[in-house]
Amino acid sequence: METQANSETDGPWHTHAGGLGADLHLDLADGFDTGPARGRGAQQRRRLVDALRAAIEDGRLGAGAPLPPYRSLAADLNLARGTVAAAYEELIAQGWLVARRGAGTRVADSVAASAPPSGTVPAPLLPPRHNFLTGQANAGLFPRADWIAATRRALSTAPDSAFDPTAPHGSRVLREALAGYLARARGVRADPNQIVLTTGVMYSLRLLTPTVLGTTVAVESHGLPFHRLAIEESGAVTLPVPLDDDGAVVDAIGDGVSSLVLTPSHQSPTGVSLSPPRRAAVIDWARRTGGLIVEDDYDGEYRYDREPIGALQALGPDVVVYAGSVSKTLSPSVRIGWLVLPGHLAEQVAWSKGVREPDASIVDQLVLAEMIASGAYDRHIRRSRQFYRRRRDQLLARLTAIGAQVTGVAGGLHLLIPTTAQREGALMAEAVNRGIGISPLSFFAHPAATDTARHGLIVGFGTPSASSYSADLDALVGLLVDVA
Amino acid sequence: METQANSETDGPWHTHAGGLGADLHLDLADGFDTGPARGRGAQQRRRLVDALRAAIEDGRLGAGAPLPPYRSLAADLNLARGTVAAAYEELIAQGWLVARRGAGTRVADSVAASAPPSGTVPAPLLPPRHNFLTGQANAGLFPRADWIAATRRALSTAPDSAFDPTAPHGSRVLREALAGYLARARGVRADPNQIVLTTGVMYSLRLLTPTVLGTTVAVESHGLPFHRLAIEESGAVTLPVPLDDDGAVVDAIGDGVSSLVLTPSHQSPTGVSLSPPRRAAVIDWARRTGGLIVEDDYDGEYRYDREPIGALQALGPDVVVYAGSVSKTLSPSVRIGWLVLPGHLAEQVAWSKGVREPDASIVDQLVLAEMIASGAYDRHIRRSRQFYRRRRDQLLARLTAIGAQVTGVAGGLHLLIPTTAQREGALMAEAVNRGIGISPLSFFAHPAATDTARHGLIVGFGTPSASSYSADLDALVGLLVDVA
Repeated sequence: METQANSETDGPWHTHAGGLGADLHLDLADGFDTGPARGRGAQQRRRLVDALRAAIEDGRLGAGAPLPPYRSLAADLNLARGTVAAAYEELIAQGWLVARRGAGTRVADSVAASAPPSGTVPAPLLPPRHNFLTGQANAGLFPRADWIAATRRALSTAPDSAFDPTAPHGSRVLREALAGYLARARGVRADPNQIVLTTGVMYSLRLLTPTVLGTTVAVESHGLPFHRLAIEESGAVTLPVPLDDDGAVVDAIGDGVSSLVLTPSHQSPTGVSLSPPRRAAVIDWARRTGGLIVEDDYDGEYRYDREPIGALQALGPDVVVYAGSVSKTLSPSVRIGWLVLPGHLAEQVAWSKGVREPDASIVDQLVLAEMIASGAYDRHIRRSRQFYRRRRDQLLARLTAIGAQVTGVAGGLHLLIPTTAQREGALMAEAVNRGIGISPLSFFAHPAATDTARHGLIVGFGTPSASSYSADLDALVGLLVDVA
Repeated sequence: METQANSETDGPWHTHAGGLGADLHLDLADGFDTGPARGRGAQQRRRLVDALRAAIEDGRLGAGAPLPPYRSLAADLNLARGTVAAAYEELIAQGWLVARRGAGTRVADSVAASAPPSGTVPAPLLPPRHNFLTGQANAGLFPRADWIAATRRALSTAPDSAFDPTAPHGSRVLREALAGYLARARGVRADPNQIVLTTGVMYSLRLLTPTVLGTTVAVESHGLPFHRLAIEESGAVTLPVPLDDDGAVVDAIGDGVSSLVLTPSHQSPTGVSLSPPRRAAVIDWARRTGGLIVEDDYDGEYRYDREPIGALQALGPDVVVYAGSVSKTLSPSVRIGWLVLPGHLAEQVAWSKGVREPDASIVDQLVLAEMIASGAYDRHIRRSRQFYRRRRDQLLARLTAIGAQVTGVAGGLHLLIPTTAQREGALMAEAVNRGIGISPLSFFAHPAATDTARHGLIVGFGTPSASSYSADLDALVGLLVDVA
């Protein structure tokens, strides 16, 4: 088939683009005109992801094969560029594709070789050998004994009504425990009546969009692609706000923006904190324009060198929606998240789930409430903070020893090694070869971002297992030394 | 304000309809033109629900106040009739409104009297004093000791990787345990690779619609309104299939139907079982037309007088999607549901959630897997079946003693007392007065159903607490005796 590509192919892009598009078109055609407008982008992305994965699995796209630039493929398939870019991002996150700056997007060497024959179920995607990807607590830290003990206490004392369906706000006992915890740990002004429990930040964003956030949502120019997609799936538009060393450049928020999603404590992923003047400015922006701010406090518990930075929400509880979850403190396998909402929004957001809680486990909520009430959750956070601080210090020592520059080290579970654009691409290419899972800063850039001059590697140090961390650091240092 | 209504008002409907519409229009106007087409119906419903609740809370709609017929209000607000009907249904389910046949829809007497001043948080909706509503396991049966023990065993033995994010299919260990359980308990032909775990049936329906089910979905003419809404929210259309004593009238499925959602074991809510010839006919329909069947096996474990009826899925695993959850076996506060999919659909449905499991608690999945593996889950089901059979027998004895007719008694957690249309309305009106929570059959009717001649009360006998059941039965019998 003339559209087949392999690692030897290095012809001009348009050859692949046209051929691949025509090929994929066969698989895509019958699904793209069905369904109403709202879901069309998401459905098209899903179908494109499926079609590309099928093409990799059945060998039409071989190991290392280059993919057309997303603009070309979008034109060829008559899809929005953002849809194709999002599909690429998803396949990169899944490990099927790798993005190499200057060399475009290619099929990962590792995946295609191990792909099962078409029609069978793909093997689970294996994590990279050296896993510096971000986004989760260390699995070995999960407080198993605490969870077991809290389950015993919570279920022994809960009234029978705890096992009835609940209103969509979530467990009252957890909302009360969280209000206290968030106040003392993060300075959040929280009333249990203003808390709505969810299954995580993605769910929270979907609950808010677009009814609460409106249809024009400003986001940091660099951030998790999936958060942008969660907002865009409802039909809202995201607009990037540039970042500098003080965080989001509030003055650059355009007219007509209805809301703003921020990670003020430790910007995801650059690691800068929103400066005090900017914190004041952004609250002022919201009050002046009637805009709403969503504070995604995804790793606010982890601050190592000084007092934690309190939540932005405390400065403007009337204009800030505070969002958090246990993904970084316990595990992403416990699906508990929360929103602390301005009073006038709490009921609206809760009931927008429906009459009953549709998704969040109330049993887990009771267990977490018991862990907070008993002090076990706070102790676990302190232990985790010490664990991650030691990890960060080890990482910093190794990087300092080879003269590597680092930023964003004051808190959180990742840091940034700034590089040139060219070196970012070279490092990523070699990282893939060496089985090092690591993210380029450019992966996080909003497609319309204007501040794309900065590049580098985002190094998550939370994920590696205790037994592998030393070898993982050796591999990372080796990479940085070898790729100048 | 001339649009205020109170329990003394009994003027013609159009007076209220016009006034209420104009009044609500003020609160609704600014939100109805935003957002893409897909979500518009759901958003409009949500806003209408909010506006009506606000009107009740701040006294514009007083206790007992009549609401306009939904057709009038729909015309007045320029909304689809189905949107207004769905909003009424939701508020009835929440207890804000009551529907009285022949007397239209009114504000509930109880709710308005206890409503807090506008702007404060409403008190949680209290369950009715005598609760014969359907839809959940008895809260007192939750196997607390089993759950605690299974948590201890599951968390003690799980590998660290259990606390990493998982692929969206859900826990492998639970899919393996469920495959065995569903095969032996329900005759389902299940392969772990064809199971996708969810948080419940609503989530499952949303995952399937419209990409898998298509845009024209046939449903039983009587069924849970929220299931229809979950399908319609994605833009699909539902079409009612009439019911008779053999279940859904398969011959009446119209042309152009892409899929069919059924409750074959114990029709929800009429309680009939799909007869063997109909089971064969519906599989034949699917194979002939390329249609897909969703089997909602919501209470298949509960069969009292003979062997359980095996799942329809076993007759056509290539054309049937089997859906279930723990809501009736454990508790709706444990959010675990499952889909057993034809092989070619499993991967597509799983990945349509995204790259990772976004909502379902993996920790709970591990606990349930352990409960199944240890035999504790099967023992719990057997205990529960005995408990509900005793309850059913008590209820039947009381109903027989007063000569009441009943149907749908062979299984499940509810039965039907057939009545005339007029008596259904009179019973419901008096039930509200007496604090008896019970549902009229007409509540479940599809807005376009043609087989609406049957009426009656749906009596759920699973929910009442052990301490109240005897008094609850007295109340129910008293109602039936007093309202001839």
